[in-house]
Amino acid sequence: MNAPAELERVFQHIRETALLEATQALLEWDERTGLPSMAGEYRAEQITQLSGMIHERKIDSAYSQRLTSLHENLESLGLNFAQASSIRLLYRDFQRNKRLPTSLVQAISKACVLGQQAWEKARHQDDWKLFKPHLEEIMKLKREEAQLLADGGNLYDALLDQYEMGARSDSSKPGQGRASTDQPAASQGANLTDVFAKLRDALRELLTQLKGSKNPPTGASWKTPVDVEKQKSINLWAAKSIGYSFDRGRLDETTHPFCTTLGPNDCRILTRYDREYFPTAFYGTLHEAGHGMYEQGLPTDWYGLPAGKYAGLGVHESQSRLWENMVGRSESFWLWATDKIAAQTGGAWNNMKPRELFRDANLVSPSLIRVEADEATYNMHILIRFEMEQRLISQELSVGDAPDAWNERYQHYLGVTPPNYSDGILQDVHWSAGLVGYFPTYTLGNLYAAQLVQAAKRDLGDLDAMFQKGEFVPLLEWLRHQVHAHGASYEPAELIRNACGRPLDHQPLVDYLRQKLFKVYEI
Amino acid sequence: MNAPAELERVFQHIRETALLEATQALLEWDERTGLPSMAGEYRAEQITQLSGMIHERKIDSAYSQRLTSLHENLESLGLNFAQASSIRLLYRDFQRNKRLPTSLVQAISKACVLGQQAWEKARHQDDWKLFKPHLEEIMKLKREEAQLLADGGNLYDALLDQYEMGARSDSSKPGQGRASTDQPAASQGANLTDVFAKLRDALRELLTQLKGSKNPPTGASWKTPVDVEKQKSINLWAAKSIGYSFDRGRLDETTHPFCTTLGPNDCRILTRYDREYFPTAFYGTLHEAGHGMYEQGLPTDWYGLPAGKYAGLGVHESQSRLWENMVGRSESFWLWATDKIAAQTGGAWNNMKPRELFRDANLVSPSLIRVEADEATYNMHILIRFEMEQRLISQELSVGDAPDAWNERYQHYLGVTPPNYSDGILQDVHWSAGLVGYFPTYTLGNLYAAQLVQAAKRDLGDLDAMFQKGEFVPLLEWLRHQVHAHGASYEPAELIRNACGRPLDHQPLVDYLRQKLFKVYEI
Repeated sequence: MNAPAELERVFQHIRETALLEATQALLEWDERTGLPSMAGEYRAEQITQLSGMIHERKIDSAYSQRLTSLHENLESLGLNFAQASSIRLLYRDFQRNKRLPTSLVQAISKACVLGQQAWEKARHQDDWKLFKPHLEEIMKLKREEAQLLADGGNLYDALLDQYEMGARSDSSKPGQGRASTDQPAASQGANLTDVFAKLRDALRELLTQLKGSKNPPTGASWKTPVDVEKQKSINLWAAKSIGYSFDRGRLDETTHPFCTTLGPNDCRILTRYDREYFPTAFYGTLHEAGHGMYEQGLPTDWYGLPAGKYAGLGVHESQSRLWENMVGRSESFWLWATDKIAAQTGGAWNNMKPRELFRDANLVSPSLIRVEADEATYNMHILIRFEMEQRLISQELSVGDAPDAWNERYQHYLGVTPPNYSDGILQDVHWSAGLVGYFPTYTLGNLYAAQLVQAAKRDLGDLDAMFQKGEFVPLLEWLRHQVHAHGASYEPAELIRNACGRPLDHQPLVDYLRQKLFKVYEI
Repeated sequence: MNAPAELERVFQHIRETALLEATQALLEWDERTGLPSMAGEYRAEQITQLSGMIHERKIDSAYSQRLTSLHENLESLGLNFAQASSIRLLYRDFQRNKRLPTSLVQAISKACVLGQQAWEKARHQDDWKLFKPHLEEIMKLKREEAQLLADGGNLYDALLDQYEMGARSDSSKPGQGRASTDQPAASQGANLTDVFAKLRDALRELLTQLKGSKNPPTGASWKTPVDVEKQKSINLWAAKSIGYSFDRGRLDETTHPFCTTLGPNDCRILTRYDREYFPTAFYGTLHEAGHGMYEQGLPTDWYGLPAGKYAGLGVHESQSRLWENMVGRSESFWLWATDKIAAQTGGAWNNMKPRELFRDANLVSPSLIRVEADEATYNMHILIRFEMEQRLISQELSVGDAPDAWNERYQHYLGVTPPNYSDGILQDVHWSAGLVGYFPTYTLGNLYAAQLVQAAKRDLGDLDAMFQKGEFVPLLEWLRHQVHAHGASYEPAELIRNACGRPLDHQPLVDYLRQKLFKVYEI
């Protein structure tokens, strides 16, 4: 075997597949930024066509033979670390992909495009019926996918593994869904059910303590309306200030904020604006800019290959939550930002105080909407979805019963009941897009973010003193070096352990929240 | 042969190709609406990849065998008109496409993406050097393409034929560039050199007559600035008012206005705004909306197939120029629109008079910029490009000498000399996008538009009385019936002859201009 030539052919095949994937990402970005109302069906056909082509390329026989041969001889080829880990991960993906017939991949792709369009409409009209048949179809197809992937193991974990390699929900049977992968058992990630339970208990205790505050924040600062056009320029400024590059990205408007990558130098972020409530867009932007800065920090030379790709969705979310919360909701951030934003509001923020913005940005109040939840209750929203999607996949819960189950859990965990579908089960895009097993990565992201900030402080010293001067480069450079530069060469659990010097742990997040919120609540 | 099954397979192949073409159109639309500055190179790779796939599909051997067999037996298959004309045109396209190697198609595609990016920058910086090497490369590749297509015939006509089937520049050797197509000689379109010469002479006479006016329009109405945000909503309203559907389209901003189709229900238009000069955006929008309404009027069931496609670029341009000029610059239009626009300008148009807007909208003045030229001098701009691109392709003129040749011709035909490149040879996107042989279709469009309006008046009566009441539906319905519904089933020359009852003729345009401009100039 001519190893360098074979390696180049495998990588070239993947790079060409990545070109198509970037094109598919544009079809999807455009669908969510302003597709004409009647154009949805044809767009679904376009996406279906590309997803089929992409899948065919992933299971192409000449490619897979080369890949298998490289993988079998991996130890003897003298590859560097990025090359070897890329081959390992490509082989792992191939093992998964070859289990899925193209017809199923295309059916899921089409159901999800139509599902998202139906979700958008159902949410707008608060009409669950419009979405229910789509969700039934999507869950049926995702179950079929899980059965093919799990090979007799836990169905939910087979889906979860796509978003966070090595994670599992089922503590009784470790790793059973991944028997066919070449993942060494030692590197398997945490048991989510356990870590979620510990976190839940600690957060409950914290919430009880906060209730004892004699002077809680009021949220009054956010009641000042700011013109949407002014908000738009403030958000551009804020994303740029923390380090998101507009030479390689853009900020647009959509219903459900997201971040998407369309090429090595094209990572786009989207937010939504509310004239009456400034934080909706602002924290949406900081969050998505955090995702975007991770993508912008990945090695462009490796674009499309595992060594140039994000390590997992938990790590991705750690970057967004870090910039949104650990930075954007810190007192030092507001000491720096208040005057600068006030100058751009046309007078609306004339009497705004950094301390009050800081306190109001951290007001804790059990609520209905995940994306607007405070940091102390946010993970309860995730827990609800984590429990429900496990039961939807296992068919312990039917789609028809899901709205009631949703509302019961909200009452149980958060003490609130949605008054309608739009603020209840229809609030998230994920299930309509086939993203089942994705939600837990949000909580993993919060946990990782707290661990990373703790480690960055260890290495860089007083981060707050930097934020107060608007100096975000040192933290970004640290993240570039510790996290971004490695792409997916390490498994998420290992990447975080290397950066932080310790494995996944709920304690740093709990400590961070206690410290900040006791200050906010003057306890 | 199982003809219905074979026909369906051929049509299905083309429909799937059209899906990819729609995706490529999105890549290009997005490139021109807000691609991040560093993302151009990767976008070029994406477009190159798709253009290669599309070309491969067009010359696919199973497809071409089926198509050839259907074409050979066309008379005996009992197909309906739309089916038969689609097979005829697909075969004709295939005969062209198979002459072009995929490597050349991809090379042109890539050169044009990079060319457009370079043009954008060169125009912005008024730096011809930035664009010159790109134009040299593009002209070299287009010449290569023309040589392969012309098969010994006239090179320029081989390119022209792609945009206006049957048209030719070379009166001495009729149709020589199309020897290999199955086009019957009888249906060949007009000789452009001849018709352009007649038009040029008539327009020169008209221009001389206008100079004798004692009370020419001043253009003062357009000197009132209107906020860009207000212009945006006025333009949305105007496009909607004349019949462009926003359920199947959208209006965006770009450097060089255009219209593009991304699916049967997704035809997008773009314009550019100038706070100081209202007509830039307004007539840009009416023009592109005219293109868009044509696309929106094509039979959606036939999307992707010839029977669902525009008949040619001359016909396309006739639709845009008809709505821009024959409607949007008529006195009756302004009698209807003035108050309605004034109400949306926030006071800026408080004292605006319909008669003055009408007169100022028709001010004739030889100028530098084609897209801002009045109707009487516009075709001189086209004549310049028509002459220059013939000489660039035949190598009588080098790219290096082109700016001087441009400026000399502007002095000769219009009496003006560009003070810089941006307002001279760098003003149009076309050559940077490989569109050589495209410009003459603009003049054809003007000629066809005047013929169509003459015929519509014959069938519908007093159009001006309708415009004055804001009734544009009857004219649009007439165009839908006479032009849009037929797709490309008829050749352009035949389609226009059927609708108007007479062949291509410069006289209706000259008559229309004389009638309107004598009124404007009070002669």
